[in-house]
Amino acid sequence: MRIPFEEVTETLKEKLIKYGSPEDYAGQVAYVMAENSLEGVYTHGINRYMRLINNIRDGLTMPKEIAGKIAGLGGYEIWDGKLGFGIVNAQLCTNRAIELARTHGIACVSLRNTSHWLRGGTYGKMTAEAGMLGIHFTNARTNMCAWGTQQHCLGNNPLVLAVPRANGDHVIADTSFSQYSYGKLQLARLEGRMMPQPGGYDENGQLSCDPAVILKSQKILPMGEHKGASIAMLLDLITAVSSFGNCASMVAKLPGNDEHSFSQTFIVINPLALGDQETFSAIVENAVNCVLNAKPLPGGTVHYPGQSMKRYRTENLEQGIPVNEGVWTDICAL
Amino acid sequence: MRIPFEEVTETLKEKLIKYGSPEDYAGQVAYVMAENSLEGVYTHGINRYMRLINNIRDGLTMPKEIAGKIAGLGGYEIWDGKLGFGIVNAQLCTNRAIELARTHGIACVSLRNTSHWLRGGTYGKMTAEAGMLGIHFTNARTNMCAWGTQQHCLGNNPLVLAVPRANGDHVIADTSFSQYSYGKLQLARLEGRMMPQPGGYDENGQLSCDPAVILKSQKILPMGEHKGASIAMLLDLITAVSSFGNCASMVAKLPGNDEHSFSQTFIVINPLALGDQETFSAIVENAVNCVLNAKPLPGGTVHYPGQSMKRYRTENLEQGIPVNEGVWTDICAL
Repeated sequence: MRIPFEEVTETLKEKLIKYGSPEDYAGQVAYVMAENSLEGVYTHGINRYMRLINNIRDGLTMPKEIAGKIAGLGGYEIWDGKLGFGIVNAQLCTNRAIELARTHGIACVSLRNTSHWLRGGTYGKMTAEAGMLGIHFTNARTNMCAWGTQQHCLGNNPLVLAVPRANGDHVIADTSFSQYSYGKLQLARLEGRMMPQPGGYDENGQLSCDPAVILKSQKILPMGEHKGASIAMLLDLITAVSSFGNCASMVAKLPGNDEHSFSQTFIVINPLALGDQETFSAIVENAVNCVLNAKPLPGGTVHYPGQSMKRYRTENLEQGIPVNEGVWTDICAL
Repeated sequence: MRIPFEEVTETLKEKLIKYGSPEDYAGQVAYVMAENSLEGVYTHGINRYMRLINNIRDGLTMPKEIAGKIAGLGGYEIWDGKLGFGIVNAQLCTNRAIELARTHGIACVSLRNTSHWLRGGTYGKMTAEAGMLGIHFTNARTNMCAWGTQQHCLGNNPLVLAVPRANGDHVIADTSFSQYSYGKLQLARLEGRMMPQPGGYDENGQLSCDPAVILKSQKILPMGEHKGASIAMLLDLITAVSSFGNCASMVAKLPGNDEHSFSQTFIVINPLALGDQETFSAIVENAVNCVLNAKPLPGGTVHYPGQSMKRYRTENLEQGIPVNEGVWTDICAL
């Protein structure tokens, strides 16, 4: 079934208010979750809503709280999220970093004790909309093997990188450091496909391309062997120590049935404070065109990162957002 | 053969002076290149020296030049490298970013028109030695396929992330975004080994695990399929637009037989300006111990990133640096 964007947003907002959220936070969270689905990131939109409600019920997300500033020096500030909505806190800190970058050229807002930010690309897009560069990252519970072991020691720790384009079609990467995301493995299992490369270990510790086997063992591989593992570990450390918050292995030891008390970092650079728009755009278009003009593999296409957002947005605004009927029934029954 | 660190450094310095370098730059470049080999990064130490000399001969590296500041706002500055030594420029900009982070909390020095920085970990280590966090990256000539094409559109664009430890054994990741580095493929070819996962395409466009075949086609894969390609493209864009310098596709079009005119970005965060050493160290040790205590795969070990540096350093200081005889003969004959 497909449901209009406005109806989705209204419904999500209404239920959040029912579960104790002030109206403004409810509106903000509902809008972003609906927009994540609208732009094709179905794993981090409406499909995560029941989990958010459960986190509120379990006291892991505190709907009335919002992040507050703890300390600052120049363009660098530490904020405490008080377990408030991940979306509300992350938008607040992104906006604060953008504001700081206007006067300091570069800014870093590091946030501790916050909740899942859902789609990281949301905050990259905000930074790009402000005409600035974004380097944003979060940690996670330890859900990925380090290299050389089959034990979970690392989060997959998504990294968001954003560069604005004058036409609004920004270049935005939003990737975790596992070879395949849990969402991608689930989709392949559903469609009965093998992964083209090994994505994890089976129960006997052998490398496997079978998504069902990997999802069962939960032993997912970092991408690029030790390389992805190294970057994931360092991003975790940088966000944790720059916020004086939890690293992934500390998050993993906290009580509660789901993820909470993450650390997140929002770095914003303001190049147009020091140079002109024309040169800036010429550089970006050179790189974008190099990719767009490449010859695709037979039957495929070549994209720049973030390119598909616009297509999904246009289609889903026109036709409504595709929603799983069971998921929607559960939400409406709240 | 093995040669003492001091002898290597003296020889490299002496030849650089002969090729037109002022004594101080020569000493700095010689020390870093010798240290890269000393710490086990043989691909980016002595083995690259003849290529550096050739770049000086060809006018691609200008041994008398050094980077100068172009513009600045708060913690953010743009510098122009004037094609000077990559090592001299990168050390200058790292130190400048560290200095700026003392007063601004966070700093970003973006450098354009510079030369190859050799081992990125050098600059991560400098930042960690100053007790700060480093996020440093460079672009490259387009040497990697974008996802969905077999054409080179992207650089492998190394990223360096550094976190200090109180005991001096810092956690430092220094990785490019190809599935395997050219150095690793060359080593596997030499040893007659296949790669455990596909690392590129063969001449007919099929995925291949054979390092000889991949090195012949030069069609190396990004790690994590589209993920590594996305990050590589964005890092390239961020460094190019924040320095108003060249992106990878612009570097690829420049004249000359080798790489030059890169963009590089040095971001430094100063957490100890806002928090205490004890809490900082507790977070870092928690993450490090989570990895070190993991059960290794049979016959293997589990490391944190950068851990092997110290072992190589100790061994090579005692026994001398392993040097290829042909390479050393060529250098001595300069």
